[in-house]
Amino acid sequence: MADSGSRSTALLTDHYELTMLQAALRSGAAHRRSVFELFPRRLPEGRRYGVVAGVGRALDALEAFRFDEPTLAALRDVVDASTLEWLASYRFSGDVWGYAEGEAYFPYSPLLIVESSFAEAVLLETLLLSIYNHDSAIASAASRMTLAAGDRPCIEMGSRRTHEEAAVAAARAAYVAGFAATSNLAARHRYGVPSTGTSAHSFTLLHDTEADAFRAQVTALGEGTTLLVDTYDVTEAVRLAVEVTGPGLGAVRLDSGDLAVQAAEVRTQLDSLGATGTRIIVTSDLDEHAIAALAAAPVDGYGVGTELVTGSGHPTCGFVYKLVARESDAGELESVAKRSVDKPSVGGRKYALRRRSATGVAEAEVVGVGHRPVDDGDDRPLLVPLVRAGEVVGREPLPAARERHLSARAELPVAVQQMSRGEPVIPTIQE
Amino acid sequence: MADSGSRSTALLTDHYELTMLQAALRSGAAHRRSVFELFPRRLPEGRRYGVVAGVGRALDALEAFRFDEPTLAALRDVVDASTLEWLASYRFSGDVWGYAEGEAYFPYSPLLIVESSFAEAVLLETLLLSIYNHDSAIASAASRMTLAAGDRPCIEMGSRRTHEEAAVAAARAAYVAGFAATSNLAARHRYGVPSTGTSAHSFTLLHDTEADAFRAQVTALGEGTTLLVDTYDVTEAVRLAVEVTGPGLGAVRLDSGDLAVQAAEVRTQLDSLGATGTRIIVTSDLDEHAIAALAAAPVDGYGVGTELVTGSGHPTCGFVYKLVARESDAGELESVAKRSVDKPSVGGRKYALRRRSATGVAEAEVVGVGHRPVDDGDDRPLLVPLVRAGEVVGREPLPAARERHLSARAELPVAVQQMSRGEPVIPTIQE
Repeated sequence: MADSGSRSTALLTDHYELTMLQAALRSGAAHRRSVFELFPRRLPEGRRYGVVAGVGRALDALEAFRFDEPTLAALRDVVDASTLEWLASYRFSGDVWGYAEGEAYFPYSPLLIVESSFAEAVLLETLLLSIYNHDSAIASAASRMTLAAGDRPCIEMGSRRTHEEAAVAAARAAYVAGFAATSNLAARHRYGVPSTGTSAHSFTLLHDTEADAFRAQVTALGEGTTLLVDTYDVTEAVRLAVEVTGPGLGAVRLDSGDLAVQAAEVRTQLDSLGATGTRIIVTSDLDEHAIAALAAAPVDGYGVGTELVTGSGHPTCGFVYKLVARESDAGELESVAKRSVDKPSVGGRKYALRRRSATGVAEAEVVGVGHRPVDDGDDRPLLVPLVRAGEVVGREPLPAARERHLSARAELPVAVQQMSRGEPVIPTIQE
Repeated sequence: MADSGSRSTALLTDHYELTMLQAALRSGAAHRRSVFELFPRRLPEGRRYGVVAGVGRALDALEAFRFDEPTLAALRDVVDASTLEWLASYRFSGDVWGYAEGEAYFPYSPLLIVESSFAEAVLLETLLLSIYNHDSAIASAASRMTLAAGDRPCIEMGSRRTHEEAAVAAARAAYVAGFAATSNLAARHRYGVPSTGTSAHSFTLLHDTEADAFRAQVTALGEGTTLLVDTYDVTEAVRLAVEVTGPGLGAVRLDSGDLAVQAAEVRTQLDSLGATGTRIIVTSDLDEHAIAALAAAPVDGYGVGTELVTGSGHPTCGFVYKLVARESDAGELESVAKRSVDKPSVGGRKYALRRRSATGVAEAEVVGVGHRPVDDGDDRPLLVPLVRAGEVVGREPLPAARERHLSARAELPVAVQQMSRGEPVIPTIQE
C-alpha cells in the first residue's frame, strides 16, 4: 500500500542539517535550548490572505522522523561515527506550538514555534518547510476557488499535473480549504477525502459509437452518473445522453470550448428534454478567476486541475524556518536574528492573536515578540499546542480543519472576496 | 526507510480510471487492443525546448502497480466485485516505447506509446502523467540553468520549497539535466545523486560569536568546508574565515544582497588574503536569468532552490495521455481522436526521429503518424523500447540519462542558448 506515513522520514532533509548537527555536537552548542520559528515574510504577490495546511501531515512526519538502521547506513558517508551514534537514539523531545490547520495567515504570522535543543530542532527544518510550503500553497489557492464558487461544489482533479505524492497532499489540502471531493484515490484511502469520477474521452473513443459508450457507462454506473458530452458534438451528445439514460441522468460534463456559452445552451437543451435535475459540471483549465467568471452561468460544479495543484501561480509559500532564540552559556534564552537588508527577520519567541471587532470581524494579526499580546476582549489566540515533550497532542480529524477554515475565512473583512490583486486584508502588527 | 519504490503505486491514480475499467469490462470493450500516447501540445510559453525526465521512476512505478489485498480493500466502495476480481490479477502485459530519459522534446513529441488492452493501459494514465509532468518540468528548467551556468556547477537545494517527495524527484531530475549535486539526502540514497551542504545562518546564530561558529565548523568538517559569510558583516566574516581556516579554506557562501557586487568584493578580499583557491558560492533566489547575469562575476558555483523545484515559472508540463488507436470488432486497429477546436490531438500510432544536418545539428522533430518516418541518413530515431510484454527493458543507470541529455542538448541549434522567450528551436513536422 502506498501509505507514506509508516516509514522513516529522516532522509527527507538537507545534507547541511546533518553537518550542522555534527559540528554543533563537537562544539557542544548542539544542546543549547533553542527556539525556531516557521513563518512567511509576505503573502504571494497580490494575495489578500493565506491558508495554513499540512499541520496533520507534519505531525505524522515528525513521529516517523527516526534514524533506523537503513537510515543510519545511508548516512555513513555524510557524518562521523559519534554523530551517527547520537542519531540512533534521536527522538524529538521538545514542544511545538502552531497555527491550527485551516487557519488564515498573514505576513510574519508565527505559524510554528519549535522549542527544543538546537540539535533536535534543526534536523526538522527541511521536512517541516517542505510540508508547510507545499500544502499551504495549495490550500491558499483552493480557498480562493471555493470562495469564488460560492455554494457550488469544487472537485479537485489535478493529480496528473503534479508529482504523484504531492497529488495526494494537494487533494487533502484542497479539502481543508473547502473542496467537496477529489479524483485521487490515495487521498480517499489515507485521509478519507471523498473521491469521485466517471469517465474520460478515451472511454467514448474506445467504443464504436458514442451511444455504445453512454450505454456501457450507464449500465455499469447507473443513471446518476456523469456523462462526458464533448467528445464529438455537444448538442448531439446531450440529446443522446438523455435518450439513453432518461431524464434521471445525474450530470453532464463539459471539458472544452467556451464554457459559459455551452453551459447555457446545454441547460436549455436539458430542460427542454425534461432533464431539469441533470447537473452541468465544467472542467477545462479552471482557476479562481474562471470560476468567478462563470458565476452567472448555469453551472452546478467545477472540476479544477492544473491551477489547483500548482497553487494558481504560486506553487510555494516561501515560508522560512529561523532560529529566533537560544540559550547562552549562562543559561539565559537570548533572541537572535540575521542582520540582512533584503531578508529581514525578527528575533525572539513569538505569540499571536487575531484581533477582532466587537462584531467578530478580523482587524489585525497581532504578533507579540517575547510576550503574549493582550486580548482586548474579542480576540482569538492563534497558537495551539501541537507537540508536548515530544508527544503529539495536536492531531485532529480532517473535517475539523475544514470547518475551522470556513469559520476563519468568514471572519475576515469582506475584501477577502475580491479576486483582484491587493494588500493583505488585515495588517500584521508586531508588538 | 523512505523508499517509495517498494510498495504498491496503484492508488496513486484517479477514481475515473477505475470506473471506466468497470464500465468497459461490462461492455466487453476493455479487452480491445489499444494504443495510448503521452505527449505535449506545446512547450511552456516562450521556452525553446523541453527535457524528458521521470522515465526511470515511471518504470519503477509501473512495476509496483499491483492490486494487493490492502489496495483492493481500499477500492471496495469504488468498483464492483467483478472489477475487484479482475484487478487482483492485474499485471501490465503490454509494450511501451518512449523517448529515453534526458532527451529533448518539442510540441507533439510522442514521449510514450503504451500498447496493451484498454483495461491495462487506461489504469496507468494518472500515474504516468504525474511522474512525467513533474519530473520533466523540473528537468526542463534545470537544463536552462546548467546551460546558463556553463562550466560552473549548479547545486540543487530546493527541497524545502516543494512537497517532500517531489523534492527527491526534483533532485533526481535536476541531476539528469546537468546539476552537479543536491542538498537532498533521500535523492543521494535512492538514486546516487551526489549530495552536499555545510551550514545555515542558524548555526552561526547558535554560537556566541561568528568566530566560535567558524571554528566549530572547521573543526568538524575540515578546512575544505564552505563557510556562510553573510550572517552579520560580509567583509568581517571573510577576514575571520581566512583567519580561522587559513588560505586553504574551501569556499565561502553568499546568500543575500547584490551577489555580483559582493562576489567581486569578496574575490578581491580573498585574493589579498592569499586565499586564491577559495571558491565563492552564491545561493539567493537564483533562476536561469540570474545565473546568466552573473556570468561575468567571479562566482564558482550556484545553489538553486525555489525556482528549480517550481520549474522556473512552469511547474508542470501539460502532457496529456490520449487513446490514439484501438481495435474494432473486426480486429483492426483504428485511429481515434476527440473532435475539439481548442484541444487538438492526432489519432494513430506515432513514430519519431530527430532530423539532423550532415554536420549533426538538429533540424526538425519528425513525427510519423501510422508509419516510421524515413531516416535520410543523419537522423536519430527517438523511441526506444521501455517495456516488452510487461517486462521492463528500458532501465538504465542515471548517469546514462545525464550524458544523453548533454549530448541531445549539444545537438540543438545554438538558439537554444538564448534565455529570452522564443519559438521552439526546431519545428515539429507530422507526416
